[in-house]
Amino acid sequence: MEEQNKKENQILGKQSIAFARPAYIRSYASIVGKKEGDGPLGAHFDQIEEDDKFGQKSWEEAESVLQKRTAELAIQKACMKADDIRLIFAGDLLAQSIASSFGIGGLHRPMYGLFGACSTMGESLALAAMSVCGGFASTALAVTSSHFATAEKEFRFPLGYGNQRPLSASWTVTGSGACVVDTQKSRVKITGVTTGIVTDYGMKDSQNMGACMAPAASGTIRQNLEDFGRKPEDYDRIITGDLGYVGQQILLDLLETEGYRIHKQHDDCGIMIFDREMQDTHAGGSGCGCSAVVLTSYIIPKIACGDWKRVLFVPTGALMSKVSYYEGNSVPGIAQAVVLEREEG
Amino acid sequence: MEEQNKKENQILGKQSIAFARPAYIRSYASIVGKKEGDGPLGAHFDQIEEDDKFGQKSWEEAESVLQKRTAELAIQKACMKADDIRLIFAGDLLAQSIASSFGIGGLHRPMYGLFGACSTMGESLALAAMSVCGGFASTALAVTSSHFATAEKEFRFPLGYGNQRPLSASWTVTGSGACVVDTQKSRVKITGVTTGIVTDYGMKDSQNMGACMAPAASGTIRQNLEDFGRKPEDYDRIITGDLGYVGQQILLDLLETEGYRIHKQHDDCGIMIFDREMQDTHAGGSGCGCSAVVLTSYIIPKIACGDWKRVLFVPTGALMSKVSYYEGNSVPGIAQAVVLEREEG
Repeated sequence: MEEQNKKENQILGKQSIAFARPAYIRSYASIVGKKEGDGPLGAHFDQIEEDDKFGQKSWEEAESVLQKRTAELAIQKACMKADDIRLIFAGDLLAQSIASSFGIGGLHRPMYGLFGACSTMGESLALAAMSVCGGFASTALAVTSSHFATAEKEFRFPLGYGNQRPLSASWTVTGSGACVVDTQKSRVKITGVTTGIVTDYGMKDSQNMGACMAPAASGTIRQNLEDFGRKPEDYDRIITGDLGYVGQQILLDLLETEGYRIHKQHDDCGIMIFDREMQDTHAGGSGCGCSAVVLTSYIIPKIACGDWKRVLFVPTGALMSKVSYYEGNSVPGIAQAVVLEREEG
Repeated sequence: MEEQNKKENQILGKQSIAFARPAYIRSYASIVGKKEGDGPLGAHFDQIEEDDKFGQKSWEEAESVLQKRTAELAIQKACMKADDIRLIFAGDLLAQSIASSFGIGGLHRPMYGLFGACSTMGESLALAAMSVCGGFASTALAVTSSHFATAEKEFRFPLGYGNQRPLSASWTVTGSGACVVDTQKSRVKITGVTTGIVTDYGMKDSQNMGACMAPAASGTIRQNLEDFGRKPEDYDRIITGDLGYVGQQILLDLLETEGYRIHKQHDDCGIMIFDREMQDTHAGGSGCGCSAVVLTSYIIPKIACGDWKRVLFVPTGALMSKVSYYEGNSVPGIAQAVVLEREEG
């Protein structure tokens, strides 16, 4: 299966896949909360919702509505109806992925639920691309979300406690991003993926998730470069999910010790989404929604308009739960990479 | 997959895929706890572990070890090493899928995490088959698990409470099943899948999950028959995941009102795994591990030896969490079907 004259998809190196014919991003949508709308990318989002409850009674219902509304917007921007979506790959951060089950479930389309923590946008996009490139779906939808209030409730403390946050802590993004993927040419194509490996350096601090995830990001990025035979300069940008300021430095250091210097190319969605000085978000943004909304508001348009020709999109996930944390376990990380390129001509 | 000779995978009807060239189950393994070992299928499991803690300190660590050990056994039975596995699809019932992250993560292989509640064996097997049939992986591993004690802690009450269980409640199976899937011929092949749709009839009783999941199972089975143009008699067995006695009756009734009578073909892993009279498990077994261990101890061998030629395997999942339950939400269901056939000759 290594070389087949481009007729077959290629299994590359240790963790990567190169698509024989690329998958295309036909449409994409982003919806965020007020705080995200006030940030540096505010002008780029499709919708900014002032009501953090999205008109619902509970935070979980709010996130479900957010995710469903974003999926519907992406479908609408593709000039499609929900019935035209053949396969949905969706997930979120909540226990048993209820934001997806209750939100996206309402579209009544064939669905595979995912859990990749904050790497879910990479995972869902990779599997959506595989499903259309493999001839398993005419059109696939990749979608994920996070919500500040559901995440605080799920992983930390009830909001009412008003607990203090260390400077290494990140701020969960309220937002959802969705992409409709098929094989019809558009400006932005998915040409390959590098699947993540669970990586555990024994870090235990759930208030420093950037440090927990940096080794996984480092491994996936290095393997992507090796598997595809590329140098960092072959990418206009290498953009991780939500390492934040602390994790970014660790990532750059780790890669440099292995001979890869990506300082010029690297950016991080968690850094891009909030203003460090003005928005008091400490280490940066996080959550499945963080990389999802930066992808669908900023990264894809930058490729579509030709500013960037090739981007490595690397959402990062911290694989933990309340239970694993309280039982004293470490926080392993995973990073799921997707190669995005501009379709020329 | 009625006509071979097709070079491309086929998207069939509303929810199904027929593989141009089938995926094959190269090896499979099952490990269960003591209670499961005492049940009607006891002689069929690869290993029965007497220690419910699997030598660990916590229930969650126990389930992680169970899942990893099962994966390693399946890999060993394929005469492979972990490094030969190109892609892993794994999930479990716990919040943030920690049994998979901490268990399977230890294999250090490229992995996509899933959440499909108790339908996960169907989902992981479907995606593993798609990955090898699409040329995205030489070899894929599908694995899932559940544990009675982690599930009670996660969804119900601490074991020490000794709470009473209604007769409609099921008993979460302590067990894990794993399959190694590739494209080299073996006795049992995966010829197609029918992807599930989240189905919500508004049932709210998490102690009656069979009833919550039966509508989803009914929908997936009906659509499988329609999409593939088959009658119930075209399957030697149609085996759902964990509807149990209550859910089974609802499923049979629902399908009959739609003109499909599957009484002769139907069985349910939740019914098969425990002895109703002797084991006091009320409605039957449940959990991701339930359908996973029945598949890998009984269903696959029955096909391999030629007793059954074609089986529709339909694991069923109840998409709920503690939070959704306490907030008064319904319990939607999903059912992920896989078509298993004997390779003749």
